[in-house]
Amino acid sequence: MKKADVVIIGGSAAGPTAGISCRRRYPDKSVILIRKEEQVLVPCGIPYVFGTVGSPEKNLIPDALLDKNGIELLKGEAVGVDREKKVVSLADGEAVGYDKLVLATGSQPLELPIPGLDKENVFSVKKDVSYLNQMLDTMNQVKKVVIIGGGFIGVEFADECRKHRDCQDCSVTIVEILPRCLKLALDDEFCQEAQDVLVERGIKVLTDKKVTSITGDGKVSGVKLSDGQELPADMVIVGVGARPDSRLAETAGLEIGPTGGIRVDRHMRALSDENVFACGDCAEKVSFFSGKPSRLMLASIATGEARVAGANLYGVCYSNPGAVGVFCTIVGERAFGCAGLGETTARKEGYNVVVGQSVGPDRHPGSMPGMANVNLKLVFCREKGLLLGGGASGGSSIGELMNLIGACIQHSVTAYDMALFQMGTHPALTASPIAYHMVNAAEMAVKAMK
Amino acid sequence: MKKADVVIIGGSAAGPTAGISCRRRYPDKSVILIRKEEQVLVPCGIPYVFGTVGSPEKNLIPDALLDKNGIELLKGEAVGVDREKKVVSLADGEAVGYDKLVLATGSQPLELPIPGLDKENVFSVKKDVSYLNQMLDTMNQVKKVVIIGGGFIGVEFADECRKHRDCQDCSVTIVEILPRCLKLALDDEFCQEAQDVLVERGIKVLTDKKVTSITGDGKVSGVKLSDGQELPADMVIVGVGARPDSRLAETAGLEIGPTGGIRVDRHMRALSDENVFACGDCAEKVSFFSGKPSRLMLASIATGEARVAGANLYGVCYSNPGAVGVFCTIVGERAFGCAGLGETTARKEGYNVVVGQSVGPDRHPGSMPGMANVNLKLVFCREKGLLLGGGASGGSSIGELMNLIGACIQHSVTAYDMALFQMGTHPALTASPIAYHMVNAAEMAVKAMK
Repeated sequence: MKKADVVIIGGSAAGPTAGISCRRRYPDKSVILIRKEEQVLVPCGIPYVFGTVGSPEKNLIPDALLDKNGIELLKGEAVGVDREKKVVSLADGEAVGYDKLVLATGSQPLELPIPGLDKENVFSVKKDVSYLNQMLDTMNQVKKVVIIGGGFIGVEFADECRKHRDCQDCSVTIVEILPRCLKLALDDEFCQEAQDVLVERGIKVLTDKKVTSITGDGKVSGVKLSDGQELPADMVIVGVGARPDSRLAETAGLEIGPTGGIRVDRHMRALSDENVFACGDCAEKVSFFSGKPSRLMLASIATGEARVAGANLYGVCYSNPGAVGVFCTIVGERAFGCAGLGETTARKEGYNVVVGQSVGPDRHPGSMPGMANVNLKLVFCREKGLLLGGGASGGSSIGELMNLIGACIQHSVTAYDMALFQMGTHPALTASPIAYHMVNAAEMAVKAMK
Repeated sequence: MKKADVVIIGGSAAGPTAGISCRRRYPDKSVILIRKEEQVLVPCGIPYVFGTVGSPEKNLIPDALLDKNGIELLKGEAVGVDREKKVVSLADGEAVGYDKLVLATGSQPLELPIPGLDKENVFSVKKDVSYLNQMLDTMNQVKKVVIIGGGFIGVEFADECRKHRDCQDCSVTIVEILPRCLKLALDDEFCQEAQDVLVERGIKVLTDKKVTSITGDGKVSGVKLSDGQELPADMVIVGVGARPDSRLAETAGLEIGPTGGIRVDRHMRALSDENVFACGDCAEKVSFFSGKPSRLMLASIATGEARVAGANLYGVCYSNPGAVGVFCTIVGERAFGCAGLGETTARKEGYNVVVGQSVGPDRHPGSMPGMANVNLKLVFCREKGLLLGGGASGGSSIGELMNLIGACIQHSVTAYDMALFQMGTHPALTASPIAYHMVNAAEMAVKAMK
């Protein structure tokens, strides 16, 4: 029987990161990573396979990453864990012994409770190369794409469909059950702006619409809504979220949390077995802010948890502060981002909220090429002025700008501190030092707090 | 006699920012801003006037900024301050009374102690629209430009000369006295990389060369070096740094510090007069790290100080933590940045330094359009793992990435904290969550600290 000090199950964002984190700290420990996929997709890159990137094969996490870090790769499906004997059993009958086990089994797409999902040309979003190639082939042949779900995945798929070589004369429709796309992540004004960009790009957006069934005779022919409307469709993509894939943990008798993830402590150790750790989408999460169960699932949270898990395997040194939630995306040329709590969420959570806003160019002077207008909103708690979150739209600098906001949240920075932030600025790279967005928005909040 | 609660002298980055900061907190206080310039240039935009932006008129700080914030603009040159009577006298004989005075008189270009600076077509870098227009006119007519000084200004001027419509067949030469361009700001490997880009762009770079005189009969014809070489030149731009313009303060009997700036306390109040504040290039600075006098002069530091000064005018509430120093620039398509102490500076200061490095694409997968390879180096103090600084080269995300590093410095973040940073990532906007540069570099430092 094969054996390693550390066995990791799962090869997407969390698994390899946990392995690397472990090997960096415990170079004498052997690590085997078991995964069922022949090749592993960059998870956030999946929508981009359909337009910008062009094929799943160009969107892979290279296995060299494992090799370079001294992690042995074992391809196979883990089907059981004997926690007493500390052995993982695989579908092909093989078994692998472990001293410490890391579960990084990810998530499964949520399925809609409606009839017709089994019709031909109805797809969900799976991290599977051959499945994605089948979607691509289908996309080359169809004319009417309906996307169910207007979250990040749905919006990104829709935008990429417009870029896809063979789909530029397709109709693309998003159907969203909430009043706006991206509503779970962004405040209304940013959702509306993103929707406006989608519409400008020729995408039809239907909000406040519930899908009741998918119709068709074998092949899909339409999507029925609760208001009686039927949208014609020859391809349907369902992107309505995901749930933790904790099936293996459940069969192994590990405790499962209220959102369906494997229950772990702040060290990412399973509550019910000190030799088992879990990280990534399969692990139960709590909010950085309230400590309540959180349904956030992001590759960036997954890798953060994986680093904690990997480092703690042979001696606790790190603690997971909970999920902050830093997102960004781009629709057409317009980027959108959020970090921590948006205004709506913060109010719903009961915070006494003060908001600071700053709108203006991200270059200076504004005539510098590549200039985009940034709209940044920061959300603070009135009592101490503590930063709770922020949302923004703008150009490509939004990605790292949200990370800057994220860092300030994670280190308990207040509006007063932020107003004094010493930034670096440059005409071709940032807003001006007089009107640097983060500082400006913080100043406006300080003013409003008085 | 005119009178206001607050009189500010200086209209560049610091003056207006101090005014805005004051008006936001003390809306009942009247503010007059006195400046001698008809129009004010965006200071960091000056090199870009010569290529990308095209004219000084397109690089102005709009006066509407003052108006919008209820600040009265008075054009005139302040030539004296009677601190007993609390009156500023202007060159045209006018006088303005104040309750609180803010000096934001900026800096003057350093002059080289060499003969020939008075020859025609020899320029320094002045924040003056008509002077810059004269430089532009000259640039349209010349063929051999020599730039003395390879700091940020010199390098940016050289790069912009290459972009200038009428100067594309000019020869452009930088002469730098130190072994490398940008050496005061960046570690050697980044200096070298920037120099390589300059050379690729057809710019001649001479380092370790001292200029001894500027030759010519009326008009400049050459630049003589101490090794005997004479470089032919029909235009010379001298960009060798600046010194605080504290002349007005000196005549008013205010205390001047060791670097030539107006001495202030951490509240930006002049040591010798409780009703006078100073901020920006004219104010004496101390290092954020050591508290020693600092010669850093940046628009971003100036605006930070101005915010402190403006807020403290009628009640101390903010303290200036000292100059951190966050810079960025772009040469051709390659951006360079640094925040805090580079490795060389940190070692020179006596820190027991640990370095973490991360090299890789700023998009994921790497085939995403607009991808640039980022090289990020973080510098930590071994004892506690405290972040001291960082340097980077890469694409346009370097601007905000350096601000993220800057925020972590300002909030005493350690390598251990940074390794757990929950970033947001997106294929089109950032590096991958598995290899996010800041986290990766922090992890490498943690590994090296063991």
